[in-house]
Amino acid sequence: MSEQTRNQAHLTRLREALEGGRLLPVKRSLQALNPAEIAGLLESLPPQERNVVWEMVDREDDGEVLLHLADEVREGLMREMDTAELVAAAEELDIDDLADFIEHLPETVTQQVLKALDADDRARLESVLAYEPDTAGGLMNTDTVTVRPDVSLDVVQRYLRLRGDLPPHTDALFVVDRYGAYLGTLPLDKILTRDPDSLVQAVMEHEREPFLDTLSDREVAQRFENADLVSAPVVNEKGILLGRITVDDVVDVIRAEADHNLMAMAGLDEDEDLFAPVRKAARRRALWLGVNLFTACIAARVVGMFEATISQVVALAVLMPIVASMGGITANQIVALMVRGLALGQVGSGNTGALFKKEIAVALINGLLWGLVIALVVLFWFKSPALSLVIGLALVMNLGCAATAGVFVPLLLRRLRLDPALAGSVVVTTFTDVMGFFLFLGLGTLILIH
Amino acid sequence: MSEQTRNQAHLTRLREALEGGRLLPVKRSLQALNPAEIAGLLESLPPQERNVVWEMVDREDDGEVLLHLADEVREGLMREMDTAELVAAAEELDIDDLADFIEHLPETVTQQVLKALDADDRARLESVLAYEPDTAGGLMNTDTVTVRPDVSLDVVQRYLRLRGDLPPHTDALFVVDRYGAYLGTLPLDKILTRDPDSLVQAVMEHEREPFLDTLSDREVAQRFENADLVSAPVVNEKGILLGRITVDDVVDVIRAEADHNLMAMAGLDEDEDLFAPVRKAARRRALWLGVNLFTACIAARVVGMFEATISQVVALAVLMPIVASMGGITANQIVALMVRGLALGQVGSGNTGALFKKEIAVALINGLLWGLVIALVVLFWFKSPALSLVIGLALVMNLGCAATAGVFVPLLLRRLRLDPALAGSVVVTTFTDVMGFFLFLGLGTLILIH
Repeated sequence: MSEQTRNQAHLTRLREALEGGRLLPVKRSLQALNPAEIAGLLESLPPQERNVVWEMVDREDDGEVLLHLADEVREGLMREMDTAELVAAAEELDIDDLADFIEHLPETVTQQVLKALDADDRARLESVLAYEPDTAGGLMNTDTVTVRPDVSLDVVQRYLRLRGDLPPHTDALFVVDRYGAYLGTLPLDKILTRDPDSLVQAVMEHEREPFLDTLSDREVAQRFENADLVSAPVVNEKGILLGRITVDDVVDVIRAEADHNLMAMAGLDEDEDLFAPVRKAARRRALWLGVNLFTACIAARVVGMFEATISQVVALAVLMPIVASMGGITANQIVALMVRGLALGQVGSGNTGALFKKEIAVALINGLLWGLVIALVVLFWFKSPALSLVIGLALVMNLGCAATAGVFVPLLLRRLRLDPALAGSVVVTTFTDVMGFFLFLGLGTLILIH
Repeated sequence: MSEQTRNQAHLTRLREALEGGRLLPVKRSLQALNPAEIAGLLESLPPQERNVVWEMVDREDDGEVLLHLADEVREGLMREMDTAELVAAAEELDIDDLADFIEHLPETVTQQVLKALDADDRARLESVLAYEPDTAGGLMNTDTVTVRPDVSLDVVQRYLRLRGDLPPHTDALFVVDRYGAYLGTLPLDKILTRDPDSLVQAVMEHEREPFLDTLSDREVAQRFENADLVSAPVVNEKGILLGRITVDDVVDVIRAEADHNLMAMAGLDEDEDLFAPVRKAARRRALWLGVNLFTACIAARVVGMFEATISQVVALAVLMPIVASMGGITANQIVALMVRGLALGQVGSGNTGALFKKEIAVALINGLLWGLVIALVVLFWFKSPALSLVIGLALVMNLGCAATAGVFVPLLLRRLRLDPALAGSVVVTTFTDVMGFFLFLGLGTLILIH
């Protein structure tokens, strides 16, 4: 785990050069990197150094580098660019990338960029812009190479030679009829390995089911993963070929979704800049802390209901965080399982019942085990069998509550169209805290106070 | 978010058919799925139904389906298979997949599988098996198609036509010298679009830097992502071409790493079966709960030091969970940022100082803000300015501790070759709990007790 990755090595070298004020080596080492690597590097730098390095990036790479940056970092850098620079950066991009990019531009710049495009490109851009970015239509590029079914492979090859380079990630041509309807896929290796006299329609494949333009990006990613695709055709509801999605964009979707789940579980945005300006970062984190302060106050009110009990048996105050925290751990584990299961489409109304039965059984077994352990520890510590009984019972019951909340809260949030990764752990942890304090102090009052 | 994905639709349909006892529709719907989809479906089913459906999977797909399953689910199903079935499943696999598969087989079955291979395949399998699965060598497949630099594209094409189908995900051939040393890459589209009389060496690309066989899979994934690769050559330290890595395997690495981070933050294994047998799931979760019980007891001991104080001012017991929980939230947010930063190679010795400065500033701003808010709430609730002062001060100080631990604990764990995602949040949360109770009750003793 502790080997230095290439990214870290770049970072170390660059910072040494920057600190020494040697800008030439910085510029030279930037030229050896691709736009995605430069973007990663910029994200790793504190704001001041980031601006210095950004100035040294080759102007031709500006557009691609900006695209690879997390939203927040990009916005920071773009704020310092003037219109001419932004237009120049946009001009270097492919249509699908340009569509992403244009959403981040101020209206006046957008107009200028559109003016700089030729009519064809403008039409293609507008067709992509018509889609939400998180749909197949929003992900697609319009640079498909199409052929007709009734020509021979030899003709296809002569056409390709005439045409010159193919767009990146072209592993296949798409076969369409005269109206542009998608018929099938002609992989490049088929053109190379089959008899040149064969007709396209005899060789083309039909397995690659085209994606409807309105399909969600998560679903697109799942199908790419499941079928090991490199590229896939996108069609509208009439079956007309609109463009294609390539695996590099799908990898970005997978990475973004995974990032989202990881960061959201901690109440963060996946586009959070590692070096966001302090005021901005503080403002955003404040919200989550405020929510937590509110829920912690609810838990404190529950404890407050038992002030009289605590003043008689102070040991209850000493032990009460244990019951709450064991419930929190149990619930968070289940929420993590559920978030992943929901993301992969593996959890649904079909298996909720079976899942709940399993989780409640697991929680009760662990509740009995650790309830017994903590009861013995408490017996040894406070020499009070009644207190032992209270904490053991409260632990079992709270783990049962935790399992119930862990399974059903994420499902409920999903049904309410809220993000289970973002809201799940707060809701569930508040619940287990409140129940933990209530059960432990409530049982304490019943059993210990006479 | 709440649309039903294709996976969920499969699941619902399948479970309805199973419940109705209609096995023919089940079998028919399985036939329409690819092995990865079948694997996803099996993972979503409780054990009994899983076994029924597994029996209905086409024998030819067995190997591929098993490969796509999470470790635990696979082991469960393989335990029920006899040697002949396992050997048959293995025979359907590519060499790189077979290498993964064979690690999960009992020794006797492995011998039989090896015997069933021809000498060539056995040699290739052994060359892949020599590597750790999490290296470039372990990820690679040996099905490269190679050409010499001094032949013309026309000759290459005739060779390909003679050879027939290319291996899946072949977007390029690799150019090697007579000793097998890697020289460059010949993309398929170049063969199709360039003059047939050109020599390979004039057309081949050098940009695709070959991967050393010992490179870690994380680093491989990062380079694939950064350079948008579909396939890449793997060489040994002498530069001899050993095989190639394809993007489908890289997508699996990315997904597995993301899963790992998400699940590890909750103390779970990414291979955890959604429907693990209750006893097994309980045993594994027990460990994490045990660790938490231990750390919660440490926190309780700290509270115990202040029993005398609490018995005089019960309000302290009521309010103490608030300070601890705000610290936990702050620390967990930073741990999530750090885990992602470390995974992407964006955090290292080069920028730790700058990161710490930012995080401590953010924490102190939020500490002051929410410290003031909670002080006002407490003043209103308990009418004690001194108690208000205690909780406000404790909150600011605990958020400072949380920021410090959040930044440095993951770095320290990484240096100790421990997993920051797995251990980070436990260590850090224990620390913020202990500090939260200590600061709040300690300040309470100093300021409130006379």
